[in-house]
Amino acid sequence: MSKPFFAEVIGTFILVFFGCGAAVFMGDEIGMLGISFAFGLAIVAAAYSVGNISGAHLNPAVSLGVLLAGKMESSAFVTYVIAQIIGAIVAAFALLMIANGQPSYDIAVTGLGQNLYGPGTAGEYGLTSALLFEGIATFLFVTVILGATQANAPAMMAGLAIGLTLAAIHMVGIIITGVSVNPARSIGPAIFAGGQALSDLWVFIVAPLVGGALAGVIFKMGLTSAEDA
Amino acid sequence: MSKPFFAEVIGTFILVFFGCGAAVFMGDEIGMLGISFAFGLAIVAAAYSVGNISGAHLNPAVSLGVLLAGKMESSAFVTYVIAQIIGAIVAAFALLMIANGQPSYDIAVTGLGQNLYGPGTAGEYGLTSALLFEGIATFLFVTVILGATQANAPAMMAGLAIGLTLAAIHMVGIIITGVSVNPARSIGPAIFAGGQALSDLWVFIVAPLVGGALAGVIFKMGLTSAEDA
Amino acid sequence: MSKPFFAEVIGTFILVFFGCGAAVFMGDEIGMLGISFAFGLAIVAAAYSVGNISGAHLNPAVSLGVLLAGKMESSAFVTYVIAQIIGAIVAAFALLMIANGQPSYDIAVTGLGQNLYGPGTAGEYGLTSALLFEGIATFLFVTVILGATQANAPAMMAGLAIGLTLAAIHMVGIIITGVSVNPARSIGPAIFAGGQALSDLWVFIVAPLVGGALAGVIFKMGLTSAEDA
Amino acid sequence: MSKPFFAEVIGTFILVFFGCGAAVFMGDEIGMLGISFAFGLAIVAAAYSVGNISGAHLNPAVSLGVLLAGKMESSAFVTYVIAQIIGAIVAAFALLMIANGQPSYDIAVTGLGQNLYGPGTAGEYGLTSALLFEGIATFLFVTVILGATQANAPAMMAGLAIGLTLAAIHMVGIIITGVSVNPARSIGPAIFAGGQALSDLWVFIVAPLVGGALAGVIFKMGLTSAEDA
Repeated sequence: MSKPFFAEVIGTFILVFFGCGAAVFMGDEIGMLGISFAFGLAIVAAAYSVGNISGAHLNPAVSLGVLLAGKMESSAFVTYVIAQIIGAIVAAFALLMIANGQPSYDIAVTGLGQNLYGPGTAGEYGLTSALLFEGIATFLFVTVILGATQANAPAMMAGLAIGLTLAAIHMVGIIITGVSVNPARSIGPAIFAGGQALSDLWVFIVAPLVGGALAGVIFKMGLTSAEDA
Repeated sequence: MSKPFFAEVIGTFILVFFGCGAAVFMGDEIGMLGISFAFGLAIVAAAYSVGNISGAHLNPAVSLGVLLAGKMESSAFVTYVIAQIIGAIVAAFALLMIANGQPSYDIAVTGLGQNLYGPGTAGEYGLTSALLFEGIATFLFVTVILGATQANAPAMMAGLAIGLTLAAIHMVGIIITGVSVNPARSIGPAIFAGGQALSDLWVFIVAPLVGGALAGVIFKMGLTSAEDA
Repeated sequence: MSKPFFAEVIGTFILVFFGCGAAVFMGDEIGMLGISFAFGLAIVAAAYSVGNISGAHLNPAVSLGVLLAGKMESSAFVTYVIAQIIGAIVAAFALLMIANGQPSYDIAVTGLGQNLYGPGTAGEYGLTSALLFEGIATFLFVTVILGATQANAPAMMAGLAIGLTLAAIHMVGIIITGVSVNPARSIGPAIFAGGQALSDLWVFIVAPLVGGALAGVIFKMGLTSAEDA
Repeated sequence: MSKPFFAEVIGTFILVFFGCGAAVFMGDEIGMLGISFAFGLAIVAAAYSVGNISGAHLNPAVSLGVLLAGKMESSAFVTYVIAQIIGAIVAAFALLMIANGQPSYDIAVTGLGQNLYGPGTAGEYGLTSALLFEGIATFLFVTVILGATQANAPAMMAGLAIGLTLAAIHMVGIIITGVSVNPARSIGPAIFAGGQALSDLWVFIVAPLVGGALAGVIFKMGLTSAEDA
């Protein structure tokens, strides 16, 4: 097991454990603003701990953008994505184990921080809204990641800027989809929650990957890159 | 299309998509504190991604202050302002497309994050309050921007400090005007919301430009500049 | 008018305009957590704009601590304190002008962000609690300021760390005294609010000055200083 | 009394005074999100003030992880833990003195920010949940600390990243245990609160120490360390 692989497992575990954990345990207490900060600050935690081992992608859509921007090998991409999905699944399982110690916890009611859209969800936003939001938000997220980590950017600020960006994205879209922008983050809870979380899952795989890929291509074209400046 | 132009389009898109998006979709959930953070963290996202291409002004009042401080060419000023207005309009349109996927969304009720003042608005503050707040807040905002980006300031902290400043400004004034301090940010939603948003729009063009210009002139005079220190 | 003088006027204006402004206009909307962030982020705004002109003390208790730590001339101390008080008074006046444009605003009801303690206030904490909290909090605040700005500390992080410290202090004590830790910040609103704000004012002059002085002396003794390390 | 000893006393005082103080005085006002930020920002305050004297561990579980990672002497470990416990106890006493000035304060009702779990507590989570959450959260917390302070990490960001990580941890777990991840932080309030706080105390000593130790061992093994990269 390579160090970058383990770093992506740990890092994605942090993201899902903190972010989805805040939603599952503390959602009623800290609201969507608190959940937004938990997701964002999880990125900060991962970036400044395992970030200098793997870059702390924590997200297949990020890795795809980095790949298409020409900053990652294809073989590493596969390794990263597997690690991210494993980290997310293990984190979701840990959350479920802790939640089960709460007498009235019922995964069918409270869920596990899974991503959903449409009738019966918090905002009742339809498929087009979900696809648009996830696609645009992931495009912006990966654009920020590529910009903040490029050669002439201040490397030490990247993790903070990226984390605060993810917090802001959640402040916009939790009510629309729960905010994925990250297929691994969606897969973890969906596996245990099942039902609609599984049937909606394709949206949270396709839209983030399209948004992330677009960000990578546009960066590679030089439109959002300052590296030749 | 020059890279700085595209950077200002993308950056202002981020500002309006995150800031106004938080107000439109999540206002009932995260309140005015959450909206404040969304606007502030949007600046962080834009500054650390496209900031080293264009400086991430995202705001005609900022560009005017920078111009009068002697740190920008007149020709670039025009390009920047056009880009900022385009970015804001496209972002407002994207928000409207997503919002329309919510069954009960009505732009006449929820709006699009537009700036308003006076009877019927959240705080019912009058015109003088609106002008005073927007003028003072923009003066302070542009003073912070000019100070944080001057030669002997720590460049890597500027985007964070400026974003947190914008968050603080929103924590003071959302109830007064919705907080503009940025003509482009006001124009975007107003075009689609129409009505009072359009008739009040002059306030959110004039007051920020006056405040920003004053900040630029005072900085140029050396009162708020440490560059000769 | 020297540049440091003007910097302290502007900086303290920012502190009171953002911090007390959040309390006056937005208190009902953003609560004490929001007010805490507004005060803290105001420090960030001031530190990264005028900080490299005057050091952004913004606070007579801070200047006293810096003086007793041996890092400031006595003559500069007097200049700074006068500037701080002027900045706070002008900011309180600006807030009052804006507030008067709200039809139902009554300074006797909403106040102007003044510091109070005892029966009839939010928490009904007594004099001993007020003195203890203000003294301890100012001691810690000035200890953080002296530590974060010492020679071997990362200068560029100081403004952020100090601002977040002030935010945390407000998260502890708004209900006790409204949180002063700063005689200038208390004098500004008290002059216009009058009544109990004036009769309680001595507490918010004495306790912060004692706390700040103690922090300066202990730092000078080397107990909290790493400069000889 | 050595300077690192005094630094750990002051630093742990800051952590408990701000964090538990926010819970005791302001819990009803700022909620669990506010308490989370108060704990996290307390770390920022301590790290950027006394951090370059002692490293600002503030926590026996952190010191144990640092010890097992091979970055601290055994003798210093004992000194640090004693200082941390003293700092926490003195802070809890200071909070009690201030709280007693509030007419209706009753330690048996409001408590002193102590850690608890099980029936009758906020979330009613059982022992297994408490052990799992505290163990996992401390493991992640100490992993972030060791990663953020390793040789090739940006030293100046460590305090901020670690503080924001602690904030995120609180956003996940206040309802489960009140969040300890720190035996000293739990001992301070428990001594004065007594009762269940004392009988539950072993959980908040054992689980954080196990989690911290594991983080230290895994870092030492190189799995989460980038120092040989």
